[in-house]
Amino acid sequence: MTGAKSLGEFELIDRFFSRPSSVAARSDVILGVGDDAALLCMPAGADLVAAVDTVVAGRHFPLDSDARSIGHRALAVNLSDIAAMGATPAWATLALTMPRADEQWLQGFADGLMALADAHGVALVGGDTTSGHLTVSIQIMGHVPRGTAMLRSGAREGDLLVVTGTLGDAGAGLALVTARMATDDRAASDHLIERFEYPIPRVQFGIAARGIANAAMDLSDGLVGDLPKLARASGLAAHVDVGRLPLSRAMQSLGWDDQARDWALAAGDDYELLLAVPPTRLDELSDAAHRLDLKLTAIGELRRGNGVHWTLDGRAFSAPAHGYDHFL
Amino acid sequence: MTGAKSLGEFELIDRFFSRPSSVAARSDVILGVGDDAALLCMPAGADLVAAVDTVVAGRHFPLDSDARSIGHRALAVNLSDIAAMGATPAWATLALTMPRADEQWLQGFADGLMALADAHGVALVGGDTTSGHLTVSIQIMGHVPRGTAMLRSGAREGDLLVVTGTLGDAGAGLALVTARMATDDRAASDHLIERFEYPIPRVQFGIAARGIANAAMDLSDGLVGDLPKLARASGLAAHVDVGRLPLSRAMQSLGWDDQARDWALAAGDDYELLLAVPPTRLDELSDAAHRLDLKLTAIGELRRGNGVHWTLDGRAFSAPAHGYDHFL
Repeated sequence: MTGAKSLGEFELIDRFFSRPSSVAARSDVILGVGDDAALLCMPAGADLVAAVDTVVAGRHFPLDSDARSIGHRALAVNLSDIAAMGATPAWATLALTMPRADEQWLQGFADGLMALADAHGVALVGGDTTSGHLTVSIQIMGHVPRGTAMLRSGAREGDLLVVTGTLGDAGAGLALVTARMATDDRAASDHLIERFEYPIPRVQFGIAARGIANAAMDLSDGLVGDLPKLARASGLAAHVDVGRLPLSRAMQSLGWDDQARDWALAAGDDYELLLAVPPTRLDELSDAAHRLDLKLTAIGELRRGNGVHWTLDGRAFSAPAHGYDHFL
Repeated sequence: MTGAKSLGEFELIDRFFSRPSSVAARSDVILGVGDDAALLCMPAGADLVAAVDTVVAGRHFPLDSDARSIGHRALAVNLSDIAAMGATPAWATLALTMPRADEQWLQGFADGLMALADAHGVALVGGDTTSGHLTVSIQIMGHVPRGTAMLRSGAREGDLLVVTGTLGDAGAGLALVTARMATDDRAASDHLIERFEYPIPRVQFGIAARGIANAAMDLSDGLVGDLPKLARASGLAAHVDVGRLPLSRAMQSLGWDDQARDWALAAGDDYELLLAVPPTRLDELSDAAHRLDLKLTAIGELRRGNGVHWTLDGRAFSAPAHGYDHFL
C-alpha cells in the first residue's frame, strides 16, 4: 500500500479541479482526469484545433495577483486563441507549477479557472502539478467544421481591418494595479483593472465571424506586435488610422490621451480579435457583433504591398517600436 | 512595422523546432506552428488521446543536465502516457520556460526533443516560450481506434501483472549522475545513466498489447506509487513477488542488492509499462514483446480484495512507503 499523502498531484487535481458539473456535462469526454491520458470523442467532419499558452508569475501578471484572476487569465488567453480560429473550445489540460500546495490559493485559482471553463462548456481533462516558481501552462483543444477555420493568412487586398471591443484597457489596468499610474476616478480604475484581471475571450464572436471574415487573430501582444503577423501571413500591407483605435469610456474619461493611444497600440493583454473582412460583408459582421453586445470598429485596410503603415490625422505616425515579447 | 527582435518567441520556435522533415511528413497537420492554434485532422473512427507532463529543472532532473537529455525526457514522459493507453502518438505542443534564450542550450534541447519526435513520427504543432526557471511542459495528442484504449480500470480477477524491460535502472542512473553512488564499472554506470537520461517510451509495445492486455499504465512514479492506482481503478488487490522484479544485467553486476530492489520498487522514472493480462493470453503478449526485443516479466497477479500486497521469499515484505510525489 502507498503511504498517506498530504496533497499529492492526483489528489490535488481531483479535489480542486474535477467538477461533475463540467466534466460529466460533456458526453464527448470518455475518460477525463485519472488515467495516463484523457480519451476524447471528436465530432465527425471536424478539424481538431489545439493551442498552448503559459503565464508566469511576475512576468505575465504581478506576483501579488489574486489567485482567482490568475486562474481566469490562464484559461482566457487560451480560449482567445480558439476564438481567433472561429473554433468551439471543448477540452483543456493544465500544467501547474507552484512553490507549494497552498489550499486557499488553489481554491481561488481553481474557482477562477473553472468558472470560465464552465461558462464556455470546457472540460478540464488532464493535469500535472509540479513544485517550482508559479507557472501556469494550459493547452486547449477544440474543433471547427472541416476547412472553415479562420487563419491569419486568409486576408485579401481591399479587406477592412476591424477589431472587437476596445484597446489599451488591459495596459491601463496593469499600470493601475501596479500603481505606476493613479486616479481618483474609482469607477474607471475598477473597470480598467477588471479588463486586465478578467479578460473576456471573444469565443462566441469568433464562431459567428467564421464564414464572414477572411482572416483573424487575437490581440495578445498589442496591435504593433500582432498586426504585422497577419499582414505578413496574408502577403499584404496593413494601413491603420491610429485615430480610429477604439478606446473605452473609462479610458477616455481619464484624459491620458497619448498614453492611452500607446497602450492601445502596444500594451497587449486585451485579448480582443483583429479580423480582415471584405467591405461588402462588414454589415453582416457588425450585426453579428451587435447581437453579442460587442463593439466592432474598422481601423484600416489591407492593400497590396507589405508592412504596417500607421497614420494619424492624415500624416504618417511613428508607432511604438514593438509589442510585448518575452525575451526583449 | 515591428522593431528588430533578438530572439522572439515565434522566431525561437521557428528556428529550433520547425522541421520540414517531421511536420511536413504528416499529412494530418493542416496548420502547425505559426497561427493562433494548430489545425489537425483526426482519423475517422478514432478517439483522441491527450496527456500533459511537466519537468522542472532541479526537481525532475539535475540542474546541470545535458540539454539534449532534457529535451528527450520531456517528450519521452509524455510518449510513455500515450504508450500506456495503447495509442498512436501524433502531435505535441511545447510550453518552454527558461531563464534566457541561450542558443547553444536550445540547439541541444531541440535536438533531443526532435530526434525522439521524429523516431515516433510526432509533429510539434504549437509552442510557447516564456522566461523563468527552466520548466518544460509538453502536451501530447494521439489517437486510438474507438473504444480500444487500455485503461487502468480494465483489469480482471486472476489477471497476471507484467512489466516491460527492467526496473530501478533510472533510479540507479540518477544516483550515479548526481554522485550519490559511485562504481568503477564504467560500462554498467554508462548504461544506467543512459536509462535515466534517455528513457525509451514503450510506444510500439503499447500498440501491440492493445486487445491482449486488460489494463495498462506507465511506471513513472515507481511500482509502489503506481501499482496501487491500477489496483484501485480496477477494484482489485495486487499481489506482487518482490523477488521477481526484473533487474538489468548492469544493475545486477554492481551487487547493490537491497538498494537495487528499493530503486526497482520506488525510484520511478523508468517509464516501463505495467499491464494486467489474462493468464491464457500471456504467451501472446510475450510474443509481441519478443518481436520488439523487449523483456516481459510476470511479477504477480490480481485477486479479489484491495490494496497492494508485497511478498519476498514467501513472506510479507514491507515496501518503501511511497513513490515519487511532487509535494512530499
